[in-house]
Amino acid sequence: MDRIDVALLGLGTVGTGVYKMLQSNQDVIARRTGLLFEVKHILVRDPNKKRKVDGVKNLLTTRFEEIMATGVDVVMEAMGGVEPARTYIERAIRSRCHVVTANKELIAKHGAELEKLAQEHGVQLLYEASVGGGIPVLGTLQHFLKANRILRVSGILNGTTNFILTQMGEHQRSFEEVLAEAQRLGYAEADPTADVEGFDAAHKLTILSRLAFGAVVPVDEIARRGITDISPAELELAHRLGYRIKLLAKAEQFGEEGPVALQVGPTLVPLSHPLSGINGVYNAIHIEADTVQDVTLVGQGAGEQPTASAMVEDLCNLFRLPLPRPLSYRRPLVLPVWEEGGARFAFIETKDRLGSDISQQVKERLKRFGTSAVDVAWLPGDERSALALILRRWDPSLQEKLTEELELEAERVVFRPLLGTPEPVGAEREAKISSAQ
Amino acid sequence: MDRIDVALLGLGTVGTGVYKMLQSNQDVIARRTGLLFEVKHILVRDPNKKRKVDGVKNLLTTRFEEIMATGVDVVMEAMGGVEPARTYIERAIRSRCHVVTANKELIAKHGAELEKLAQEHGVQLLYEASVGGGIPVLGTLQHFLKANRILRVSGILNGTTNFILTQMGEHQRSFEEVLAEAQRLGYAEADPTADVEGFDAAHKLTILSRLAFGAVVPVDEIARRGITDISPAELELAHRLGYRIKLLAKAEQFGEEGPVALQVGPTLVPLSHPLSGINGVYNAIHIEADTVQDVTLVGQGAGEQPTASAMVEDLCNLFRLPLPRPLSYRRPLVLPVWEEGGARFAFIETKDRLGSDISQQVKERLKRFGTSAVDVAWLPGDERSALALILRRWDPSLQEKLTEELELEAERVVFRPLLGTPEPVGAEREAKISSAQ
Repeated sequence: MDRIDVALLGLGTVGTGVYKMLQSNQDVIARRTGLLFEVKHILVRDPNKKRKVDGVKNLLTTRFEEIMATGVDVVMEAMGGVEPARTYIERAIRSRCHVVTANKELIAKHGAELEKLAQEHGVQLLYEASVGGGIPVLGTLQHFLKANRILRVSGILNGTTNFILTQMGEHQRSFEEVLAEAQRLGYAEADPTADVEGFDAAHKLTILSRLAFGAVVPVDEIARRGITDISPAELELAHRLGYRIKLLAKAEQFGEEGPVALQVGPTLVPLSHPLSGINGVYNAIHIEADTVQDVTLVGQGAGEQPTASAMVEDLCNLFRLPLPRPLSYRRPLVLPVWEEGGARFAFIETKDRLGSDISQQVKERLKRFGTSAVDVAWLPGDERSALALILRRWDPSLQEKLTEELELEAERVVFRPLLGTPEPVGAEREAKISSAQ
Repeated sequence: MDRIDVALLGLGTVGTGVYKMLQSNQDVIARRTGLLFEVKHILVRDPNKKRKVDGVKNLLTTRFEEIMATGVDVVMEAMGGVEPARTYIERAIRSRCHVVTANKELIAKHGAELEKLAQEHGVQLLYEASVGGGIPVLGTLQHFLKANRILRVSGILNGTTNFILTQMGEHQRSFEEVLAEAQRLGYAEADPTADVEGFDAAHKLTILSRLAFGAVVPVDEIARRGITDISPAELELAHRLGYRIKLLAKAEQFGEEGPVALQVGPTLVPLSHPLSGINGVYNAIHIEADTVQDVTLVGQGAGEQPTASAMVEDLCNLFRLPLPRPLSYRRPLVLPVWEEGGARFAFIETKDRLGSDISQQVKERLKRFGTSAVDVAWLPGDERSALALILRRWDPSLQEKLTEELELEAERVVFRPLLGTPEPVGAEREAKISSAQ
């Protein structure tokens, strides 16, 4: 049986998980791959720190050079952050080591150039764990959707924000309150910016769009909005209208090698859509393609074990699955997204007292102004009332004039995109059905 | 660019889909695989029948020998049924052709021996399309869960029955009525036995258990029940208790190389479980494993395009992914399942008029007899009332004595298994929470 020498960079949550899995599942791995993986070195910052695994003392080192000097077959990077991970990975590739990493920020920012470098040196760089934790979404795109034209990839890619939105919706709690709880539970960082402002999801979307469309889009060109301005009332009204609000990351390509549109932001997902029921810390990716139609993958998007699993599966595949075909990445035209027409959800907080006839009033007033509302819901509230509409067509001027048209004194108005086209409701639906018959 | 000669057996729905995809997506496939696939022959029964695709006239033949005589690289079988598909595939393998098939019945019954034959002849036999249509579940088990110990695979594997149950539940319609509609829509066969009695799902479960556990279990050893005795009232009461009834196929392994339990039958899936929201003709597979925790794959389980997609993706992978490791299939001990203890859903139709205190009465009576109900729901009904219970522990004697204990004159009693352990509800839940604090 061939022995493969592995160096592990980092022994935090994910690194510990990888080490433990390589011990506990060694027999399964050997039987199914014919390979024996042995961790020879573990790079850490502090060799004296107490560790959660036994028997690693003699493997620890603080010097990356030492690892390269003795020579290993594979470097598994579980440190996170761009530097020094990038420098180490580059040096490993130049020394003809395969590399497995879970580092989404690094792969989002420098993945294309690192893959090119790996190809030049005849080694592989795999990073399944960087998107969706244990969900094999990158492998699915690369190996099981090669003969399909991928049209759109939509995902719930951040478990922290999905946990927060789920809790807010189920228990009518404020963003601030649930964030504090998530921090206590260890689901959110002390500085939650990367999660709640959508940066983490944007990194992952960059990686997905590269594998789905060959499109290299810098993270800062992704239209991005966070979840900090969402209230339980907004979630409640969206639900009454038949939607869940999710922090959705969406990449679309318009025609083969055509322009792309990428966005991360709170989005209304219809209750009938597979992504609407993804709750808590789960992640999911919905892939639309020309022949398979749609495939959705669901799983745990973070955590020691699922992330370690994805890294160790990559490790096994380095020696089983072929090198990818020469890469043909491109820098596509990136279309603006927030300005696009199409349907919108509008959420309005107002000090006006809303009567029970508000729904009919709103529909009539909007019609007079040439805009039509598909559906309306409202909450009376004690100090502030809330009103929500599904607008069939949106144009940027509505940003200014919607509340004027509705003759409401608005405290706050937000617009959110919808995934897909709104279903007709009520009388409109009946009209459509009878005309179809 | 290498050219690969393909013979297609069958030009029905799936065969037509394969032919169309190979034409329409030839450019994508060539770019991503470096291969040009060309259909050289199509085996049909009637060469004069009108076809849904153009340009195939010169490719049609009724003689399999003719195809073998000219020599092709790959045979794609889309005929269905055991014979003559089995004979053709064996001969193709012996002539050193790779084989791709969508034939679940054949692979369920003879897959292990055909794979062995293929291995002896240095060719591959791939059959992703045989389970879950376009969902890449077999590929995921083989390539992305090698380093994991798989514990349990649960799936909604039959689109016809899932469509029927969804329609019955959403619109309170009877089984017979919805079946007739499914037949009109082409979702169900004129003879619906294979679908509604669970044979189709059992075939697919056999294939899943072979790939997940290396366990070869003959289809007739799978505990199997159909959906013909389910009423809208039963679906309604299950929903009130927090569940959806699904025709679930479940395979579990107890310990590495240990015994297995396989069952297909109506099962209560908690609303919080990813499989509970899979509706209509969608299929889904939930995989539990020791390190990745759980992964769910969702997609269209049948139809021309999704099934063709899975076959063409297999076709591409023949030349890209490595031959599997020498197979080590085994005939495991198969445990009985319906007799097992554990929780049950009981649904009772009675001519007794149920009072509003029935819930409390039931709980008390059951307690007296040493059986506890977690939760109770009931419907008054016009002629017959219906009562449903979640029983924490079940033993076979309850089959006889449950209604006697409840002092009800039962017209009909059915018991169904639950996926997972029932959540405590009401006072019991509060007691559990307060004792945990």
